[in-house]
Amino acid sequence: MKEIKPPRSRAFAPGHITGFFKVHENEDIRYRGSTGCGVVLNGGIETEVVLDNSIDKVQVWLDGVKVKGKTIQSTIEMLTDEVLRIECRADIPVGYGFGASGAGSIGTALALNDVLSLNLCSRKLIEVAHSAEVKNQSGLGDVIAQSHGGVVIRNMPGTAGICNIDQIPSADLKVFCVTMGKIYTEDVLKDADLIGMINSEGKKAFDSLLKESTISNFMRQSEIFSRETGLLDTKAQDVIEAVRDAGGMASQAMLGNTVFAIAESAESEQAIVGAMMDYGDVLVYRINHCVPRLL
Amino acid sequence: MKEIKPPRSRAFAPGHITGFFKVHENEDIRYRGSTGCGVVLNGGIETEVVLDNSIDKVQVWLDGVKVKGKTIQSTIEMLTDEVLRIECRADIPVGYGFGASGAGSIGTALALNDVLSLNLCSRKLIEVAHSAEVKNQSGLGDVIAQSHGGVVIRNMPGTAGICNIDQIPSADLKVFCVTMGKIYTEDVLKDADLIGMINSEGKKAFDSLLKESTISNFMRQSEIFSRETGLLDTKAQDVIEAVRDAGGMASQAMLGNTVFAIAESAESEQAIVGAMMDYGDVLVYRINHCVPRLL
Repeated sequence: MKEIKPPRSRAFAPGHITGFFKVHENEDIRYRGSTGCGVVLNGGIETEVVLDNSIDKVQVWLDGVKVKGKTIQSTIEMLTDEVLRIECRADIPVGYGFGASGAGSIGTALALNDVLSLNLCSRKLIEVAHSAEVKNQSGLGDVIAQSHGGVVIRNMPGTAGICNIDQIPSADLKVFCVTMGKIYTEDVLKDADLIGMINSEGKKAFDSLLKESTISNFMRQSEIFSRETGLLDTKAQDVIEAVRDAGGMASQAMLGNTVFAIAESAESEQAIVGAMMDYGDVLVYRINHCVPRLL
Repeated sequence: MKEIKPPRSRAFAPGHITGFFKVHENEDIRYRGSTGCGVVLNGGIETEVVLDNSIDKVQVWLDGVKVKGKTIQSTIEMLTDEVLRIECRADIPVGYGFGASGAGSIGTALALNDVLSLNLCSRKLIEVAHSAEVKNQSGLGDVIAQSHGGVVIRNMPGTAGICNIDQIPSADLKVFCVTMGKIYTEDVLKDADLIGMINSEGKKAFDSLLKESTISNFMRQSEIFSRETGLLDTKAQDVIEAVRDAGGMASQAMLGNTVFAIAESAESEQAIVGAMMDYGDVLVYRINHCVPRLL
């Protein structure tokens, strides 16, 4: 007897590291989110949606392990009542400031649209993924940056068509990362004093970036932001200083206990890796100029 | 004696084929352009800017041949007074509806910004490239589509931040093309009756696409548009019918005498190529989900 394969669709969405940001509240979830600047990575999340009548409720799997996946669950609820299984494979760390939840949500929306022939346009799918992120406080601006590509400036908070996206022109430069511990976005967003500090420093960083839209200035402003807000971890500070001593530029991923460095030239790559490898395994990515897509 | 190398920067911008469109006039060039839908290709133009004191006026070269390059000339004038040489290498045909002039202009703006350290953001550079295109009537919407990626829906005319971009979700599907002759965008844009027809049919195609944002519907609406506007060449019509008989979908590039077909599955690729190769050399690209970048 011929085996009948269940309908399935796959999508890829890239990771994203925010350098600095500002939090924006709004009653309308489509206008809520963050402004700021960050870098889209060639590593990300591959999401496969499988229609599965043999299960009684939606399942989310990450690298072979069943997880809660609350942001992905919200994304699904906004698009369908079907019972299905989501299988995510990550080549970015999850929970360390790489925008994994945003990437998973975009991929889920894209693959669901395909497998169920919803025939929606990308913007509607991005809106669903953004709303799911913001509602679950797993992120504020990742989905929007990830839906574009390159080094993304988010001029306005909110979803696609509202957020007023720009970019810092760049090549596919190498991005080096060392992860050191988890920070929960949700916990930071509950701290009103911290939000006040973030918004004040975020504005300064943003104003400076608009005067000089370069990678160097982005890294400089990100590092000042992480320091002045108090979000900078002491161990992360050591790594950042080591990279600086080696002639490179590094900062801390927002919000995650991860240091990232961008190599502006092939010559600086070796020095940066040399400085970072004393503090942990160095993950190597590139700036990714591509937008999410079906596979 | 050590040779001193002149400063130079390189950039890549992808090609773009429009399926259907509407023309929008406006006194403000930033709001002038077209709405419609088209597909961004992995083939495009690589542009190198070389500062060159040995020449007395700006030079534009394409694949080793000195050309007029009026849209590129306009792009340069808006950004600098420096005397320099632009060297373009194309892996898309020039003058056949692949958005070559737009790609060259974006690449010029990006590479100029880099080599002269202008420190401008992408949006400003896109605005310059779009304005140069529209002013020279070499294109109306290519620059905007090329600055995004995938299958791009231009909801509003004009430059980035104004044009209200959306996309049809897709994979990196193969795009097959056969070129048959040149059409000059400038000549079409002078014909008021034709513009009337284009705008009427463009609206119908657009309204239909919004109801079902799929590649199939994009190709269907593009084919109807090319036929009903009278822009469809008789030879192109033969190719489109041959592809249809082979189970595929094809249409004519706007504005160029080129037939393009998108293979929605690996199975359909061979049949499409088989049908098209009787009419000329088949160029093979993929849908490109990446945005322009420095090299």
